[in-house]
Amino acid sequence: MNRDKANELDQLDPLAYARDYFALPTHGIYLCGHSLGAMPANAPEHLASVTRDQWGKNAISAWNNADWINMPQRLGRKMAKILGANAHEVIISDSTSINLFKLIVSALSLRPDRHVILTEKENFPADLYMADGITQLLSKYQVIRCEKTEIANHLNNDVALLMLTHVDYRSSEMHDMAALTAEAHHHGALVLFDLAHSVGAVPLSLNECQVDFAVGSGYKYLNGGPGAPAFLFVAERHLSSTTSPLQGWMGHQQPFAFSNHYEPATDIKKFLCGTPPILSMAALENSIDIVSSIDIHAVKEKTDQLAELMIELMALKCPSMTCISPKAAKERGGHLGFFHQDAYAISRALLDHGVIADFRAPNLIRFGLPALYLRYVDIYDTVATVSKIINTNIYHHPRYHAVMTVT
Amino acid sequence: MNRDKANELDQLDPLAYARDYFALPTHGIYLCGHSLGAMPANAPEHLASVTRDQWGKNAISAWNNADWINMPQRLGRKMAKILGANAHEVIISDSTSINLFKLIVSALSLRPDRHVILTEKENFPADLYMADGITQLLSKYQVIRCEKTEIANHLNNDVALLMLTHVDYRSSEMHDMAALTAEAHHHGALVLFDLAHSVGAVPLSLNECQVDFAVGSGYKYLNGGPGAPAFLFVAERHLSSTTSPLQGWMGHQQPFAFSNHYEPATDIKKFLCGTPPILSMAALENSIDIVSSIDIHAVKEKTDQLAELMIELMALKCPSMTCISPKAAKERGGHLGFFHQDAYAISRALLDHGVIADFRAPNLIRFGLPALYLRYVDIYDTVATVSKIINTNIYHHPRYHAVMTVT
Repeated sequence: MNRDKANELDQLDPLAYARDYFALPTHGIYLCGHSLGAMPANAPEHLASVTRDQWGKNAISAWNNADWINMPQRLGRKMAKILGANAHEVIISDSTSINLFKLIVSALSLRPDRHVILTEKENFPADLYMADGITQLLSKYQVIRCEKTEIANHLNNDVALLMLTHVDYRSSEMHDMAALTAEAHHHGALVLFDLAHSVGAVPLSLNECQVDFAVGSGYKYLNGGPGAPAFLFVAERHLSSTTSPLQGWMGHQQPFAFSNHYEPATDIKKFLCGTPPILSMAALENSIDIVSSIDIHAVKEKTDQLAELMIELMALKCPSMTCISPKAAKERGGHLGFFHQDAYAISRALLDHGVIADFRAPNLIRFGLPALYLRYVDIYDTVATVSKIINTNIYHHPRYHAVMTVT
Repeated sequence: MNRDKANELDQLDPLAYARDYFALPTHGIYLCGHSLGAMPANAPEHLASVTRDQWGKNAISAWNNADWINMPQRLGRKMAKILGANAHEVIISDSTSINLFKLIVSALSLRPDRHVILTEKENFPADLYMADGITQLLSKYQVIRCEKTEIANHLNNDVALLMLTHVDYRSSEMHDMAALTAEAHHHGALVLFDLAHSVGAVPLSLNECQVDFAVGSGYKYLNGGPGAPAFLFVAERHLSSTTSPLQGWMGHQQPFAFSNHYEPATDIKKFLCGTPPILSMAALENSIDIVSSIDIHAVKEKTDQLAELMIELMALKCPSMTCISPKAAKERGGHLGFFHQDAYAISRALLDHGVIADFRAPNLIRFGLPALYLRYVDIYDTVATVSKIINTNIYHHPRYHAVMTVT
């Protein structure tokens, strides 16, 4: 493999055209799409136009004539295709964390004689925070955190809910959704998956896997913009028997009746709460339309090839970078994680040398590999840069060791 | 009063210049700023620029170099001035409903031996929904709804929290914040005000009034855009003793440490939850900057003059329209409410004749009077149009009686 061969792979790439849909950061190769997806090139004009033509020219009338009122459902329908769900099982609302609250509490209400939320120790921290908060509010419940490999052993008839993040935010390891769901159901437990690190990166089939509940964010591989509103999924079989504990006017059966009593909608709208942030929703819809126009199996295939090229080149040129992601492509999500004892300094030096990757304490560098806008030559150049930084000791420079504080 | 005199009032209006800050709807006189504020004229370009230059060019780096990470606090500081609060007592987050949940639960935790959330029967319905949802989740609590005039009589040592909407969404009647807060405190109860229909319309002085908690939205008189993120206020004396029941990563003391255990921030950031919708936040910041540049006492004074002109003209020309708003300006918020047995048909006909007002079942028309962009001549023309519609029986046309459905 050399740079020319990487360029050749790009020329043969059937997804190469999709890169033109995006305007990429100007200061380097963007390998953080697993954290914040790149901007669709048409997003600034789309936002300006929604703002000017809908809010500006129509103001309150836009709730009807620009159909703002149906955006949560309309986007939910579009999202459902990406999730392998039915159109009426998905809605866009609030943030992933808020949606987790709604669905964890809903799930617990379906298993009134059980007391345990089972999860893994290394689940995404924000998900652990939310579950812990629920047990503080509702003291009859407890969270049990076990090792990733011990989940099946901890399933028993006191587990109300198995809550997992599908793709590990550090290692990129992907749970076997179908197998774990079947195992949980075998013990009478319900299953909730956080798909934040999966959606848009890997094919999903929630209904085929019999998943009960799911949540996820729109701003990673879906490229919906910073803090894009999140989605939630409730399997049809639970729709009539659950309600949201966060009762807001948008979840009312007749929001515009302004009744003094809450009557939840009978459909997925019951999981809405307050008024959605329409401008952020508009950016998300624009990007969902782009992402969903591209075959997700082709996306995953290219991601895997990018990943394999990176693993191979890194082993060759930077052996001190230890890949912690699964070797088997089918067990991986859309990014790769590498350990290095000086990961922090290396990540800082990379940024200085035109490679935008991210660092997670204490010693992990993550490279996001969104197939829609990354090229094989980007992988080649990234590893060449890592190699240069490590092998010439650039990263030992004190400026790369200063702690970056976010205030 | 005639149209020329109304024009003269506009020429003398010290706030007339502010109208140029807005691009108003193209299909009529906009009297729905109490529902969705008009668009600041610079909003489309501001949104396009944040999208293109921050998300597009910087992507993930914009969390630091465009200071996205501090937006909730930065906007909170700006909002604090509008609220009569200290900079560190206010933050922007989620929706009004979600913030209500956080603060109601927090307030209850401060009065562990009390069981009642006291509110008024005609409080804003969404606030009633949220409180009712909390009592379903936490069965030891109950909501007592009393008449507006009976609040003081229902305060006793079982009331943990008095929860009120400051300005009534129908009548525009404004509670005496200082007096009710003092009365509640006298009984050991805490106070939470929803300021959705007050903020940006009337002067507020939360700390002078000793208010404990407050929430409100950014999309009415603040002109922050459809579904703009909401704010919450926690009085300094409660900051160290309360935490949010909705534990999300942005509320963590060290969000970027990705610790597996939740340690709430020690400041107002503890009430953040998930990742905020940055694009909607950007529109809100743009409008807060405009609104807060204008003296709120001058705004209220002009609103009162617009209201008095409308009340006077309506009584003269349309006596069948019954004003339900207080006669005394100091008891009113930023809109007026009029009853008419055919309010629905009249509101539909008004829209057809270039007057955008809103209808609330069963028989109320609301006219929002945002002083920043409304003229005296708009009031004159509005009443002339109402008069024409009523006195010529235009509103009896069947097309104005067809039920408008929002699907």
